[in-house]
Amino acid sequence: MDRARTRVRAAYRRIAEVDRPEVWIALRPEHEVAADAEEADARAAAGEPLPLAGLTLAVKGNIDVAGLDTTAGCPAYAYRPAADAPAVAALRAAGAVVLGTTNMDQFATGLVGTRSPYGAVRNAVAPERVSGGSSAGSAVAVALGIADLALGTDTAGSGRVPAAFNGVVGLKPTRGLVPTEGVVPACAGLDCVSVFARTIPEARRALALLASPTPPPRRPGPWRVAVARRADLGELDPGWAEAYERAAARLTAAGAEVQAIDLAPFSDTAALLYEGAFVAERYTAVGDFIDSHVGAADLDPTVARIITAARGLPAHRLFADQRRLAELRTRAAAELADADALLLPTAPGHPTLADVAGDPVGANTRLGRFTNSANLLDLCAIAVPAGQLAGLPFGVMLLGPAHCDDRIAEIAALLEPPLRVAVVGAHLTGQPLNHQLRDLGAQLHLATTTAPAYRLYALDTTPRKPGLVRVAEGGAAIEAEVWALPAAALGRFLAALPRPMVLGSVELADGTDAPGFLCEPGALKDAKDITDHGGWRGYLAALGH
Amino acid sequence: MDRARTRVRAAYRRIAEVDRPEVWIALRPEHEVAADAEEADARAAAGEPLPLAGLTLAVKGNIDVAGLDTTAGCPAYAYRPAADAPAVAALRAAGAVVLGTTNMDQFATGLVGTRSPYGAVRNAVAPERVSGGSSAGSAVAVALGIADLALGTDTAGSGRVPAAFNGVVGLKPTRGLVPTEGVVPACAGLDCVSVFARTIPEARRALALLASPTPPPRRPGPWRVAVARRADLGELDPGWAEAYERAAARLTAAGAEVQAIDLAPFSDTAALLYEGAFVAERYTAVGDFIDSHVGAADLDPTVARIITAARGLPAHRLFADQRRLAELRTRAAAELADADALLLPTAPGHPTLADVAGDPVGANTRLGRFTNSANLLDLCAIAVPAGQLAGLPFGVMLLGPAHCDDRIAEIAALLEPPLRVAVVGAHLTGQPLNHQLRDLGAQLHLATTTAPAYRLYALDTTPRKPGLVRVAEGGAAIEAEVWALPAAALGRFLAALPRPMVLGSVELADGTDAPGFLCEPGALKDAKDITDHGGWRGYLAALGH
Repeated sequence: MDRARTRVRAAYRRIAEVDRPEVWIALRPEHEVAADAEEADARAAAGEPLPLAGLTLAVKGNIDVAGLDTTAGCPAYAYRPAADAPAVAALRAAGAVVLGTTNMDQFATGLVGTRSPYGAVRNAVAPERVSGGSSAGSAVAVALGIADLALGTDTAGSGRVPAAFNGVVGLKPTRGLVPTEGVVPACAGLDCVSVFARTIPEARRALALLASPTPPPRRPGPWRVAVARRADLGELDPGWAEAYERAAARLTAAGAEVQAIDLAPFSDTAALLYEGAFVAERYTAVGDFIDSHVGAADLDPTVARIITAARGLPAHRLFADQRRLAELRTRAAAELADADALLLPTAPGHPTLADVAGDPVGANTRLGRFTNSANLLDLCAIAVPAGQLAGLPFGVMLLGPAHCDDRIAEIAALLEPPLRVAVVGAHLTGQPLNHQLRDLGAQLHLATTTAPAYRLYALDTTPRKPGLVRVAEGGAAIEAEVWALPAAALGRFLAALPRPMVLGSVELADGTDAPGFLCEPGALKDAKDITDHGGWRGYLAALGH
Repeated sequence: MDRARTRVRAAYRRIAEVDRPEVWIALRPEHEVAADAEEADARAAAGEPLPLAGLTLAVKGNIDVAGLDTTAGCPAYAYRPAADAPAVAALRAAGAVVLGTTNMDQFATGLVGTRSPYGAVRNAVAPERVSGGSSAGSAVAVALGIADLALGTDTAGSGRVPAAFNGVVGLKPTRGLVPTEGVVPACAGLDCVSVFARTIPEARRALALLASPTPPPRRPGPWRVAVARRADLGELDPGWAEAYERAAARLTAAGAEVQAIDLAPFSDTAALLYEGAFVAERYTAVGDFIDSHVGAADLDPTVARIITAARGLPAHRLFADQRRLAELRTRAAAELADADALLLPTAPGHPTLADVAGDPVGANTRLGRFTNSANLLDLCAIAVPAGQLAGLPFGVMLLGPAHCDDRIAEIAALLEPPLRVAVVGAHLTGQPLNHQLRDLGAQLHLATTTAPAYRLYALDTTPRKPGLVRVAEGGAAIEAEVWALPAAALGRFLAALPRPMVLGSVELADGTDAPGFLCEPGALKDAKDITDHGGWRGYLAALGH
């Protein structure tokens, strides 16, 4: 098996196909990555356990990768690290193959993905929108199917906002859990290494290789999730408040106890991060460098302005802000005392590239409204997709106490919407195979009919089965039930399906499509057209069953 | 929505259909359970969060259910409890509906499921084999699709052996984690309430409602799983050693580090449980009752003999055994020091009802070889299905340190075999839609052909797609690739499939079946037979692509 080698070939084919050069700061040549992949394949073939064998990894440009320059998004800042950062080394040791370093808001100062001399990163789904940042290229590389996993960093939301905007999972571990050695600091006391992946299990698998959170005890019982009242959310893009409430309703439907809390301590903390003196830590990190490069083309002007302005912040103000933060922490902890997690929208809206160009600071500040507070309050967080709105990904975030990283990931998994399957025969309620659906945890979602575009046949099989056939003309509406079930259950259902039954896309009365029962062409030989009975149960009734 | 009511109706239909009256000690009348279901539906409709709403629950006969007699498998012992045991109450509060109490080896003394005046419980899959016990009816009720969840107890393997024999999940939590109030004691210091479910996530969901284990810290990195050497396993049923090694190989393939350890401390502890003085605790529990009912028809003769014999065990021997156990615990902990879990077969073999009737004590003793030690060593355990052998379920068990219940359940999930999908067109390696499979985490499993029973058509679609059609005669072998992917990924793949493509069972060159691409009958209109090209790539090559 040459899993890694095959995967790398596909990654480079995809890179060529999508034509998004701004995703990368340093994309390694394919032959070099292929050599790494061959080594991973050889280790796997020799029996070495490699949990990430054959997976491709993109690394944010502020994290050390041996053999590549670390730039933090600034060419003049570049240095050649002696070794991989420990986070990179851990994933490489597990078999992941590094594709290169990704573009970012310079010095991780920004949530937009546009503040980079390497170019503004376009959104994976809607290229006229921002990617979100600062871990811009990492999120987009995963969203476009180039990388299986990506590392980012997250100080104020840089690992979550771009996850939301590109429809992927962004996991921000508890502060201090994953080592930040080999990472260019933004605010050294707050920075976290974060993970991007397509799915929650993939993100959790990577986290397990980086750290092992040990959660505090909890009282047994249903998950308890705190939510914000609509008035506390502030102004959101159109439809976002409703989408947030739908996510909360999905948690309730999955059995969680959802309760509204006062969001004020979280909002006040978020405001404190950039309006207060904490931003001075950015000057501590790279202020001297910026002072000595004023006006250089390699500096992003907005980033330079923000960091330079932080030089004058007085220490007495930092003391006052730290006292204020301690109060806010106590209040936030009290709000979450009865909760396993807090559900929030990941961002309040999704600006276009033009919006951000028109108001570089204001548009950026707005994006951090819900993410800014997590690291100051010592919370872990996971940003997950929660559907689409007007063709754009919509994302929500679960926040939890320190070391509850796995717990909030479990709760986030409840947000995954169930899939549907349309049945027309022996799987209908009361029919002999209906228990197969129930055994898989499926629940009746809708009793309906197909669109008037089908004919139904009694197949010449034992036991007797119906065959649904889509026709160009002369079709009728056939009785159907739509069942809701988890993705894994639908996969298992398909895997157990006997010939000549097949599952394909069936158009329902309401015009939507759902996977549903059809049949192989060969089964129609000697079959009897029973369309006029309106459905399988009508036909059985006419037979006297 | 009347989820609970519908589910209860289906459960009673299934009870009638399977005709296994020995599963139950007290099956509640359907109208009573229906009333509970209607109440659960009303609570759910009123917005109450009910994580188990609409799920049916079976409860082992030694656990208190308000309104039913607690018998522990002995009619003369019956008492009417004042309230539900806390474990039952917790699941009912979450919306589960109790169907009744289930049959068991009397006083939970046995691993066979035959030691009951209510009748020997037949295996769900192979009725001539034992169900395993002592939580016999609970395991079979879940395996037969009657109950979604069941409670059992586990002192020496009673929650795991029947899970293995009936192909379901059996979760034995850390000792003391789930309250044993309202449970008739077997060995009070060792008894655990256990959970049966069809899947690992369902079992974990129930556990989360009963308890919240807080695991000790672990070093980050791949899961580390200890395994036994074949010689240490002792004599197993034919093929079971190989099946065990396949399970270990599956963990390795999933990235776990698997290492052989010395099984002696575990085997020695298992022997100590029933050869030593610990069994005297069973006399403490019900000895007086048995002494006063000697010869009564309600007593199982084997159970009565075992417990009566325990009366004479001297206390000095218990002191000696406790000292010996302390030594064995230290040795076992040393063996597991570098491991997250220990993988073992759940049982050494699966006897028939006749085998057990012929040697009631010997056949039973053999069954506990791998399960007996868990509670003495303070380990948590989960028994999970690991395929079939000669038509019988084969199961393995993961054991872990106390409070690692969730951790071993995560590792157990790696044992779930991936599903397969056969592709013949645009999803082949190098073709335009191949990335869809890779994006879902699929890996190439096999390059092959279909069985020589198909014809291939170029459909009149945009983009151009192939249509595979099974034919009664004149079929050919068509180039195919088989990809392996998780069940959830296969479900998502199906849900995104556009008309006229469908997935059904495709016969491969090696005679096995896999879900694979076929097409709707209507798509064959104006399609061109391209079978002679041997496959889609051959056809494209001939076109000059």
